[in-house]
Amino acid sequence: MRTLLTAAICAATLSSSALAVAAEDPAAVARDFQTRASNGGLAFEIVRSLTTEVGARPLGSPGDAAAVAWGERKLKELGFVNVRREEVKVPSAWQRISDRAELVGVTRQTLRVAALGDSPSTPDKGIEAEVVRFPTLAALEASAPGSLTGKIAFVDVHTRRTKNGTGYGEAVGMRTRAAPLAKERGAIAAVIRSVGTDSHRFPHTGTASWRADFPTIPVAALSNPDADQLSRALERGPAKLFLDLRSTSAPATAYNVVGEIPGDGSSDEIVLLGAHLDSWDLGTGAIDDGAGIGITVSAAKAIAERGKTKRTIRVVMFAGEEIGIKGATAYAEAHKDELVKHVAAMEADFGSGPVYRVTPDASFPAALQTSLRTGLAALKVDAGDGKAEVGPDLGPINRAGVPTIGLALDGTDYFDVHHTEDDTLDKVDATAIAQSSAAYATAAWLAATHPESLKRGSK
Amino acid sequence: MRTLLTAAICAATLSSSALAVAAEDPAAVARDFQTRASNGGLAFEIVRSLTTEVGARPLGSPGDAAAVAWGERKLKELGFVNVRREEVKVPSAWQRISDRAELVGVTRQTLRVAALGDSPSTPDKGIEAEVVRFPTLAALEASAPGSLTGKIAFVDVHTRRTKNGTGYGEAVGMRTRAAPLAKERGAIAAVIRSVGTDSHRFPHTGTASWRADFPTIPVAALSNPDADQLSRALERGPAKLFLDLRSTSAPATAYNVVGEIPGDGSSDEIVLLGAHLDSWDLGTGAIDDGAGIGITVSAAKAIAERGKTKRTIRVVMFAGEEIGIKGATAYAEAHKDELVKHVAAMEADFGSGPVYRVTPDASFPAALQTSLRTGLAALKVDAGDGKAEVGPDLGPINRAGVPTIGLALDGTDYFDVHHTEDDTLDKVDATAIAQSSAAYATAAWLAATHPESLKRGSK
Repeated sequence: MRTLLTAAICAATLSSSALAVAAEDPAAVARDFQTRASNGGLAFEIVRSLTTEVGARPLGSPGDAAAVAWGERKLKELGFVNVRREEVKVPSAWQRISDRAELVGVTRQTLRVAALGDSPSTPDKGIEAEVVRFPTLAALEASAPGSLTGKIAFVDVHTRRTKNGTGYGEAVGMRTRAAPLAKERGAIAAVIRSVGTDSHRFPHTGTASWRADFPTIPVAALSNPDADQLSRALERGPAKLFLDLRSTSAPATAYNVVGEIPGDGSSDEIVLLGAHLDSWDLGTGAIDDGAGIGITVSAAKAIAERGKTKRTIRVVMFAGEEIGIKGATAYAEAHKDELVKHVAAMEADFGSGPVYRVTPDASFPAALQTSLRTGLAALKVDAGDGKAEVGPDLGPINRAGVPTIGLALDGTDYFDVHHTEDDTLDKVDATAIAQSSAAYATAAWLAATHPESLKRGSK
Repeated sequence: MRTLLTAAICAATLSSSALAVAAEDPAAVARDFQTRASNGGLAFEIVRSLTTEVGARPLGSPGDAAAVAWGERKLKELGFVNVRREEVKVPSAWQRISDRAELVGVTRQTLRVAALGDSPSTPDKGIEAEVVRFPTLAALEASAPGSLTGKIAFVDVHTRRTKNGTGYGEAVGMRTRAAPLAKERGAIAAVIRSVGTDSHRFPHTGTASWRADFPTIPVAALSNPDADQLSRALERGPAKLFLDLRSTSAPATAYNVVGEIPGDGSSDEIVLLGAHLDSWDLGTGAIDDGAGIGITVSAAKAIAERGKTKRTIRVVMFAGEEIGIKGATAYAEAHKDELVKHVAAMEADFGSGPVYRVTPDASFPAALQTSLRTGLAALKVDAGDGKAEVGPDLGPINRAGVPTIGLALDGTDYFDVHHTEDDTLDKVDATAIAQSSAAYATAAWLAATHPESLKRGSK
């Protein structure tokens, strides 16, 4: 009886799966996922749970440990299998203690400032020195050796608001390069205008050592209104800044959290959905990257509810993205022998959305590329014709050959709150994140059910 | 020769003044002031100067002293006469030292909080206690004696966004009443949701003792996103809050700053333009009330540039409005014998504008009421038919009989930044403040040139 029943269920499952592959219109699939995503709003609920129960979770903090436990618990609750944590060793995890800045003039005006990640502390009594402003990083680079001796360099580049993050890309260089360039010219500290598009008194932090050496002089970001204030003060004459930045660093162990929606057993191929679990310390990491966790986990869950797919869906909550893509690098190394089975990967790390463009890797079979474009068009997603985007956490596996499906999230407002105290749940758009969840579910489902083998070299 | 020249000048002045009264169309006057206000943008430039050179200026702080010196200097620079400081003694000026709050759960999450003015400090080790939430002040009031023993009360009232500040009026009661009501029921501290319409992590401070006793338990405001977070945590079960609030109080001497554009000598009557010079400590007091200083000073300056008026225009930069209308109360007392000469008063303390409604006091001659409505209509200002608004700093002289010209500033966005760190120059709308300056200039000019006597009892 039991055997017969199981066989019947298997037959039903297989035939419904086979039917799905043969008959389902990608646009209908997308609409179905949109309905599922809107009902209950699981993506938003996941962000609510993470940000309320855990809050900030920089690598090495108690919040980071709590987030890993949360991630395992949440995936198990939602019915994921093979839920596990995978170790990520980090030689140096930086933690903020306190930041303080004052504009020293007739009075001492408090300026809102945040040390950049990996900034050394100032001496115990702080640093008070004259400020020299540079409107561009090139202007700092062009300044003479010794010209900043004993001074504080101020790199004052504005960030353009764009949908796809190009404005951020243009400005973010000062975050890593201001300190070393200033140091070479004799400066004892550096400050930058926040890499952010808002006009609120929230400094935008971010690592100063991403793809670069550790900074050897203290470096911090001023909020945009405070950078305006310092600029105005400098228009009136020389100005001094007082900086008191305290931080600490220690080796730390973090964890990628992994869970799966298993395939129907007919393929050992894996479709990966990734987002990062760590956040900066200032906010609760709602848009960066709670939203990505919500989108990817809810998308995988929706696929599970729809029925078995040929391939396994694997969700990875990456550790330590903010401090140099630590978890994704460890994942690529730990799974290097298995990467050939990773036939498609998607990442969500640009806020709550909506998704406005899909760009499949050019290596995918033409039929899959077509179904991705057709399916996502039903969610008002247009078709990109360039190179598929690779988010930061997909970099290591993509360089090892794993192709991506680029799903572009609308980032017009993303850099208003990115890396600030203001990155909180109220900034997540419940309607947009439901569409994003549906778009990721659709793309992952189409890849996971595609009838041809997707393994590299299989054609 | 000298006598003849003087006589000629006097005659010319008198006749031009008389002509102005007889012939000038109020709408043409308003348009002229709009042109003057737009050219050069003096109102905005005054706010820029105050917020950049001085910054925050809570009563009793070095910034407050610097602001008084700034005010005297600025009025003299602009050609005002009888520029002076008038002493205001304050028995207790509260100064913030530091604020810290944490939501105590699986982790300790930092919440953004600001002590309310006159809040006592917490004990040296802070306070950590269970939180009890009240959705309304009435709910707190209805709670049983002793029901909050050893706990922290949380009054969680939202502020409605309105143009005229009624939403603020509905919510602000919790700022003064939360602490005494909670104390009566045994609470050891109280927190409130910020009285503010934004969704950013800026707590809105404000005095807790306005028209009430000094609070005797620590009381602070959470930013709106942090109040959301605490509410969400409480939905999941009991939650504790850690509060560490430090402040100090000391007697202080502050100063009203006064300057005049003298009349033509034909009247001893005074038209008063007022705004307050002090600010809260968190921002740079750009909208509250740098904007009012900019509007009133620039309006008086525009009148001076236009030519002599019959009456004197007096600008008063009031001290200590934020901590209980200290300067305005002192002004009414010091000038009580002269108040009969104060024939009309206007106040700007609601941001940069624009002005959308004029409501002259019902006691003004009908012809003046008509010219005010006609003139301001040219600036798209409609005519109010209720009681003339009396701003906080006009209260004391209004109660002593001085009639006001109510000029309503559009406050739709005002409570987004009011009493927060985010009250900075970038929040001042340069176009709106120019219109406001023109509206105040028009109203003051019409009152200052009105041919009939405006003295009370003169009709």
